[in-house]
Amino acid sequence: MSSPVHRVSLGDTWSGQVHPDIDSERRTQSFEVERLTNILDGGAQNTARRRKVESIIHNDPEFSYKDNYFMTQNELYEAAMRKTFHIRMLTQSLGWSEEEVIYAYRSLSGDTVLGLNTVFLKALRSLGSEEQIAKWEPLCKTCQVIVTYAQTELGHGTYLQGLETEATYDAATQEFVIHSPTITATKWWPGDLGRSATHALVLAQLICSGARRGMHAFIVPVRSLEDHSPLPGITVGDIGPKMSFNQLDNGFLRLDHVRVPRENMLNRFARVLPDGTYIKLGTEQSNYLSMVVTRVEILLGEILPLLQKACVIATRYSVIRRQSRLRPSDPEAKILDYQTQQHRLFPQLAMSYAFHFLAVSILEFFRRSYNAILDRDFSLLPELHALSTGAKAMIADFCIQGAEMCCRACGGHGYSKLSGLPSLVTRVSASSYYEGENTVLYLQVARFLVKSYRQAQVSPGSTSQRSLPSSVAYLTAPDLSRCPAQRAADFLCPELYTTAWAHVATRLIKDSVHHLQTLMQSGADQHEAWNQTTVILLQAAKAHCYYTSVKSFSEALQKLENEPAIQQVLKRLCHLHALHGILTNSGDFLHDGFLSGAQVDMVRTAYLDLFLPIRKDAILLTDAFDFTDRCLNSALGCYDGNVYERLFQWAQKSPINTQGNPAYEKYIRPLVQSQRSKL
Amino acid sequence: MSSPVHRVSLGDTWSGQVHPDIDSERRTQSFEVERLTNILDGGAQNTARRRKVESIIHNDPEFSYKDNYFMTQNELYEAAMRKTFHIRMLTQSLGWSEEEVIYAYRSLSGDTVLGLNTVFLKALRSLGSEEQIAKWEPLCKTCQVIVTYAQTELGHGTYLQGLETEATYDAATQEFVIHSPTITATKWWPGDLGRSATHALVLAQLICSGARRGMHAFIVPVRSLEDHSPLPGITVGDIGPKMSFNQLDNGFLRLDHVRVPRENMLNRFARVLPDGTYIKLGTEQSNYLSMVVTRVEILLGEILPLLQKACVIATRYSVIRRQSRLRPSDPEAKILDYQTQQHRLFPQLAMSYAFHFLAVSILEFFRRSYNAILDRDFSLLPELHALSTGAKAMIADFCIQGAEMCCRACGGHGYSKLSGLPSLVTRVSASSYYEGENTVLYLQVARFLVKSYRQAQVSPGSTSQRSLPSSVAYLTAPDLSRCPAQRAADFLCPELYTTAWAHVATRLIKDSVHHLQTLMQSGADQHEAWNQTTVILLQAAKAHCYYTSVKSFSEALQKLENEPAIQQVLKRLCHLHALHGILTNSGDFLHDGFLSGAQVDMVRTAYLDLFLPIRKDAILLTDAFDFTDRCLNSALGCYDGNVYERLFQWAQKSPINTQGNPAYEKYIRPLVQSQRSKL
Repeated sequence: MSSPVHRVSLGDTWSGQVHPDIDSERRTQSFEVERLTNILDGGAQNTARRRKVESIIHNDPEFSYKDNYFMTQNELYEAAMRKTFHIRMLTQSLGWSEEEVIYAYRSLSGDTVLGLNTVFLKALRSLGSEEQIAKWEPLCKTCQVIVTYAQTELGHGTYLQGLETEATYDAATQEFVIHSPTITATKWWPGDLGRSATHALVLAQLICSGARRGMHAFIVPVRSLEDHSPLPGITVGDIGPKMSFNQLDNGFLRLDHVRVPRENMLNRFARVLPDGTYIKLGTEQSNYLSMVVTRVEILLGEILPLLQKACVIATRYSVIRRQSRLRPSDPEAKILDYQTQQHRLFPQLAMSYAFHFLAVSILEFFRRSYNAILDRDFSLLPELHALSTGAKAMIADFCIQGAEMCCRACGGHGYSKLSGLPSLVTRVSASSYYEGENTVLYLQVARFLVKSYRQAQVSPGSTSQRSLPSSVAYLTAPDLSRCPAQRAADFLCPELYTTAWAHVATRLIKDSVHHLQTLMQSGADQHEAWNQTTVILLQAAKAHCYYTSVKSFSEALQKLENEPAIQQVLKRLCHLHALHGILTNSGDFLHDGFLSGAQVDMVRTAYLDLFLPIRKDAILLTDAFDFTDRCLNSALGCYDGNVYERLFQWAQKSPINTQGNPAYEKYIRPLVQSQRSKL
Repeated sequence: MSSPVHRVSLGDTWSGQVHPDIDSERRTQSFEVERLTNILDGGAQNTARRRKVESIIHNDPEFSYKDNYFMTQNELYEAAMRKTFHIRMLTQSLGWSEEEVIYAYRSLSGDTVLGLNTVFLKALRSLGSEEQIAKWEPLCKTCQVIVTYAQTELGHGTYLQGLETEATYDAATQEFVIHSPTITATKWWPGDLGRSATHALVLAQLICSGARRGMHAFIVPVRSLEDHSPLPGITVGDIGPKMSFNQLDNGFLRLDHVRVPRENMLNRFARVLPDGTYIKLGTEQSNYLSMVVTRVEILLGEILPLLQKACVIATRYSVIRRQSRLRPSDPEAKILDYQTQQHRLFPQLAMSYAFHFLAVSILEFFRRSYNAILDRDFSLLPELHALSTGAKAMIADFCIQGAEMCCRACGGHGYSKLSGLPSLVTRVSASSYYEGENTVLYLQVARFLVKSYRQAQVSPGSTSQRSLPSSVAYLTAPDLSRCPAQRAADFLCPELYTTAWAHVATRLIKDSVHHLQTLMQSGADQHEAWNQTTVILLQAAKAHCYYTSVKSFSEALQKLENEPAIQQVLKRLCHLHALHGILTNSGDFLHDGFLSGAQVDMVRTAYLDLFLPIRKDAILLTDAFDFTDRCLNSALGCYDGNVYERLFQWAQKSPINTQGNPAYEKYIRPLVQSQRSKL
């Protein structure tokens, strides 16, 4: 097993020494970095397996990152397709497991394509019958078909019921006729659709025997397996350049009365008999199951690593970059020694850990409940839905803010693509909309909270009150009206701040319910009242989500009692995460006097006092994520800290510097020489 | 003079009707849009002149935006150079004034180059002697020289004293020897330097007669005027791709003992005599003057329009986009009718106006004091510096946040480059570092505030207390300890909320000073105490800056008494801006009991109640910015609202759809056909 230090040279051409300014940061270790890496990986065995895969990938020239930042959309797509193709080849030749394949893709930082095949597989396993799974899974896994998941339309996004694409059952031929009736019904955004997919799983309004039966999923061939040309009735192409993800061919699809056989409708939860009779086997919610799956897995697989990488880059750069003097007689200081820089970066570092433990806990809950749901026991689905929805919205929101903060914290060099940060920032931005738009998701959580709150108001001891899901059990817990803390140190207590967050969430939910009632008493109908309360509901949902992140982090720490040094280090991050949230939202805590102004000042003192010990461990805490230099692909964030040399070296490789100047003869020479006079 | 409606077709190929969903928004006008446009332009005459220039530009095929979103860095540079070249040609042939030239550049949304010539000219006029201005200004204006402003270095940014480049005076030849002693001394980032500039204004440490004299500016030729090749001793090139601004050739420059004549040091405020004697004619601050100039002008010329355009695009799209139903029986609702969407967009709209009036007021103050400063009367410089510094940091910060918010508010389509929003977002991001890093700038404001506060503590009536600059005069005003508002409507009062902001700013400054004192009493030296207080100082500076924006907005409204309808409409935006700030920072207002929890709820009610009337005027308020479709270059934001047709049409033009698929034969066919079986 390779140690982190061994990994310096892995996949990078730079052969310089480790910069003394970052080397010194690693000299005093208050904990064993390798152990923390193992915990993040879910065990030392996983770390070893992951590193083995990464070393194969990073030593194979087919997966080179060379010139990644200088490529056009076409070149990015081709390079991503090349990497994807070779992962498939390696998977076959080395017999990689599904987990090893995931490690391989992650080590390429998502610069691959055909990921929608996996999304399709999840949808197939959730919504398809056993026969359908048996037919399509092997075709898909061996890439004999390339399938995309086609849900959103040009005019329709998160609101599933609004989709316009129609699938009308024709009993005469036992086929569905799939059709885009308007321009706004054009499927828009599906990944891999623009140039790669041979099939699409099309979400469409089912119409049978004249009745509209809501959204169902249909497997539709879109391109010829012979020559890749669009099939009859199909108009398909790429939607053009995006803020990021330009290696991916997000596409559009118009269907003109395209016929597919009856068996192509996924039918675990609903069936259409040959005569057109419709049989429903699941609830409305069952359609959402595959979305829940994707939402949960995307947290650890896509969104969170973007923040973690941004943290690694910004923190490492901040011990190399020096600016101004802390005292007139000192040399210029490392920027990480400035309080404002710590204030920017440490909360992001704390969140990088907090959200890891939150996502892991939801994933575990999901795995416990998944089989029950497949067996049509939907009792856990509401809480699972609320948890995954809230976590997706919150983690995406904070990862976006956090990555931007890390980028800005690197000043001008953060703005260079060579820093790696612009790609992280623009990529994570997309998480605000994909897999459910965040505001819509928060409001779904709010609906769950309002429902739970009303349930909690039922007289204590009744059956329905006892059945409150555990994530909202705080709604029935005895509430303190005042925080008992008397000095700053009192706030370094998970029980105290978890309770404080529960108090605020409860108050905001209560406030929302009260607001709803007041509006309805003054004549608004329930829908109008809901809309007029959404700003407050949003605030309540956010407080609830923050509470869950603080709670899951503290619970994860309790399980680390055999690792006292690591427990100690992470505990500070947990404190920081909770207190930073309180300071940022201090109005919510002061509003009803739960905290006094003096107590908020204590929180601030406690928060600022955490900076010094976290500062000491900062580099080690970022090393623990164990991202290789290849994977970071950042001139600022490499393990050895040779920032300036690398930035200078990488810039020389820009085609701008290696090709001629297309504008000189045409514009510059005529300008400069037109009124030539002696200088 | 063309009316806004006339401008629909200007520069766009789309010939459709105006979409009824946006047309209806313009049917009831509570104010005259044209008058508001005139106010923003500073008079109807300016509007007419601006439109005349825009119409010349937009009707000239040389300035086409065609395929802008599909270009490589090389193509963007060449296109920008072409446009710049043709503006120069037009300027000559049409005899445009300096203001008309500015209109021309703005109408191209900054997709031009050679802007550093202007920065150089400003520096020249501020720091150069009359003889130097007489020599270089005409050369620069006629483009016989292309000059960049070379300040930042690979290892050094905002902290001027840290720059390493050296200019050593050699009395024997009466030359300066300009040299980059280390890799970190490499000049890095100057615009136009990578491929275009013939000269650079190099900021360097002056060393004469063995003594270091601090930063001075030197005109250094870098490329041959004959063939554009780098001159001896010069290593120059492009720093590679950035998050945006890729039309611009930001460059690097290494100087190996390059000699320039004594006259090439700008010498209004400092001179080196032939024998090496150094004569200082200005204060330390005089070097900052040209930075102040640029900082002020960049607000209206670059940063603010990016937020305004984002607002226009997002608001127009939000009356076309429909999603979900407000009531089950209704059709899908315009997303602008959702409270959460209003909560996202209206504060950005309010800021678009608030910051316009703030920037205008600072610009006026600047123009009033500029001549005095050139005459070496520096008494107004500290306030001018604090005002411009604070405004730059605040406006940049909020414009970044606001543009991102607008982008996200458009959901997935906002993420497409064709929406125009990614370019605005990535471009405005740079304002966090250029012309001074925002955190550093805020802390400069904080230093001014602490100084002013201490000055105010001097016993009332003394000379120094009376001389407090007007922007901080509130520090000596009698302070209320409790806000007198008793109901929501009481908060719709500029005097009340301006006072509230002044109260909070004062308290936070006081808190910072107290924190500084406490630390020093417990043994910290002043530098350590300062660093340990910066998080609080930052908060104080931000509150002060917000106060100035609220105050200048209300003052601007007072001057509009002859325009009651417009005054009324803008007043709501002023209320919204002030109250949104209070809600976002409610902890600061609750902290000492200045507001009670019940009063914060009143603020929220007042804030939410403003949505309805602002909603009615929203489209008109964005129309008033009078951006042409060409200038917005957005499939989502065009005047006629034909969003989906345009998005579909523009996507077809992507090279991805017009060229072959480079990956099919190599990767897709082998994958799909390798294990061919019958489907």
